[in-house]
Amino acid sequence: MINTPNHKPLVLTMGDPAGIGPEITVGAWKALRETGPVFAWIGDPACLPSGTSYEEVITLTEAARVFQKSLPVLPLSLQAPVTPGKPDILNAGLVVDSILRAVGLTRAEDAGAVVTNPISKAVLRRAGFPHPGHTEFLAELCEVPGQEVMMLASPMLRVVPVTVHVSLREALDTLTTDLIVKVARTTAHALKRVFGIATPRLAIAGLNPHAGEGGHMGREEIDIILPAIKQLRAEGLSLHGPMPPDTMFTDSARENYDVALCMYHDQALIPIKTLDMENGVNTTLGLPIVRTSPDHGTAFDIAGKNLAKPESLIAALRLASQLATHRAANPEPPEKRFT
Amino acid sequence: MINTPNHKPLVLTMGDPAGIGPEITVGAWKALRETGPVFAWIGDPACLPSGTSYEEVITLTEAARVFQKSLPVLPLSLQAPVTPGKPDILNAGLVVDSILRAVGLTRAEDAGAVVTNPISKAVLRRAGFPHPGHTEFLAELCEVPGQEVMMLASPMLRVVPVTVHVSLREALDTLTTDLIVKVARTTAHALKRVFGIATPRLAIAGLNPHAGEGGHMGREEIDIILPAIKQLRAEGLSLHGPMPPDTMFTDSARENYDVALCMYHDQALIPIKTLDMENGVNTTLGLPIVRTSPDHGTAFDIAGKNLAKPESLIAALRLASQLATHRAANPEPPEKRFT
Repeated sequence: MINTPNHKPLVLTMGDPAGIGPEITVGAWKALRETGPVFAWIGDPACLPSGTSYEEVITLTEAARVFQKSLPVLPLSLQAPVTPGKPDILNAGLVVDSILRAVGLTRAEDAGAVVTNPISKAVLRRAGFPHPGHTEFLAELCEVPGQEVMMLASPMLRVVPVTVHVSLREALDTLTTDLIVKVARTTAHALKRVFGIATPRLAIAGLNPHAGEGGHMGREEIDIILPAIKQLRAEGLSLHGPMPPDTMFTDSARENYDVALCMYHDQALIPIKTLDMENGVNTTLGLPIVRTSPDHGTAFDIAGKNLAKPESLIAALRLASQLATHRAANPEPPEKRFT
Repeated sequence: MINTPNHKPLVLTMGDPAGIGPEITVGAWKALRETGPVFAWIGDPACLPSGTSYEEVITLTEAARVFQKSLPVLPLSLQAPVTPGKPDILNAGLVVDSILRAVGLTRAEDAGAVVTNPISKAVLRRAGFPHPGHTEFLAELCEVPGQEVMMLASPMLRVVPVTVHVSLREALDTLTTDLIVKVARTTAHALKRVFGIATPRLAIAGLNPHAGEGGHMGREEIDIILPAIKQLRAEGLSLHGPMPPDTMFTDSARENYDVALCMYHDQALIPIKTLDMENGVNTTLGLPIVRTSPDHGTAFDIAGKNLAKPESLIAALRLASQLATHRAANPEPPEKRFT
């Protein structure tokens, strides 16, 4: 039986129609149709695998009604026919439209949360899309540019990279005390309000081997990270660090914190993907809406071959439902809304 | 019953006598006394836990004879009494003597391999020891300075960091095509000769997120790593890469290679320690002798409290025995000996 949570149905974007998005959407719907969470997919049904039982709907109330029987579709119309594995920039506009509509429905509180299917940054870049990726685009759409924080969550670990999609050298050049403080604040606030963790414990990674060994292997821990930790402690947050990066993700170490704040992309992504490749979920903190996505790309190489696994998308839909539940139960005070 | 491999008994150094070395040595001997591999410990029996059944020996032949009954000890005499957890620089000279004796016995082929207990770099540095660590010191003693390559091996993964104990910024500044080529050659040679892998498959990590995404997030993959891969392929080695660092350590990805060559310390150490904290072994490639060590430090904070686990030391002794067996079965051609 479908659970009836305290939030509206979720909306799931189309993603690149030539990627694995359409097939994992159907896989996730089959896995969740009996139990929920209820969601509607925003896309062109022409790109769904043939034989899919879907139904076009106008509202999310209607989506909830049909969900057990058919995949509810809020329909859009593609410009070009879709060949799995062969992305077409003619369809880039509709990929973006699907995101716009999902965010609009969620900000209007018709939908409970946005879940996004994978897009191809390379395809969108060629089509003139000016944003580095989903996360930054969503922050623009929600009118909080620069406030977005990327978190990856799996049942075993949550990580937040302080610097994200930049070269390792640029990560070193852009890491500052202020940036760490800002990202830690957003993370702690979201863990309280949206994850329901009353007193979140943050583990702050060092940057260098052995966390610099007292300055013998790099001074960033002393000059940049420790001042951030002091400032955040003064604000009442619970933090450990700077921790030696190589031992902070072991089974016993992970018991001591709720989230690891990492200094660069792979310091965060290597441990979470190594521990659990299939159940990782990407979620954006710092937005006025809940947004999750599967932790993988368009996978053009296997699209249309019935090889793609829907597990990460299923995990993303379930996490979105949990977060929407917590958020609905803990409304932001009016003056802080949308900030 | 003790196995009788084709190699001589192993020698185990004392390490810092105020660390966990003495107690894990006794733990490893208890675990291995019935099965081997046979080893002799080089140290002052005064620092062994009280009640340890040990026997002072003069030769390794004698050590093999007593091993089932007592821990064989090649005796040294400490300068200062030992308090667990309180290292004393007065004993630093003897820590070094134990290593010197172990290397001498192994180079003379009285011993089959050297296994080292943890030392404290900070303590040795204060005592005037000029080497960054064990690995570099062993290369000096074996007259092959600069040829040493650090490998960490566990049942799930083998990793080699191309740059090691330097800050992350210095790792970026010192990474060159020549360095990658040199480390890859030593690694491939050792996997063939000492690990018994006829055609070793090397996975070469990228440096940047997503391996640079075609130059959009850093150019080191294009300018430094790809030229090394081309050169090594031309020499007949089997390589994949540059691989996106975050997905190359998943269960399925690891099936495709025998060793991962990583560009910096934590890119190698995070995945191996996250996957298996207790059974990691450090081994030095590029030396004329086999050397392994447990993959942890002196752990002064828990020394003498009977909390230390001997698993990594046991794994180091077992791996040393396996490697010594392969090496004995595949002698280096005379002209390449000690190079």
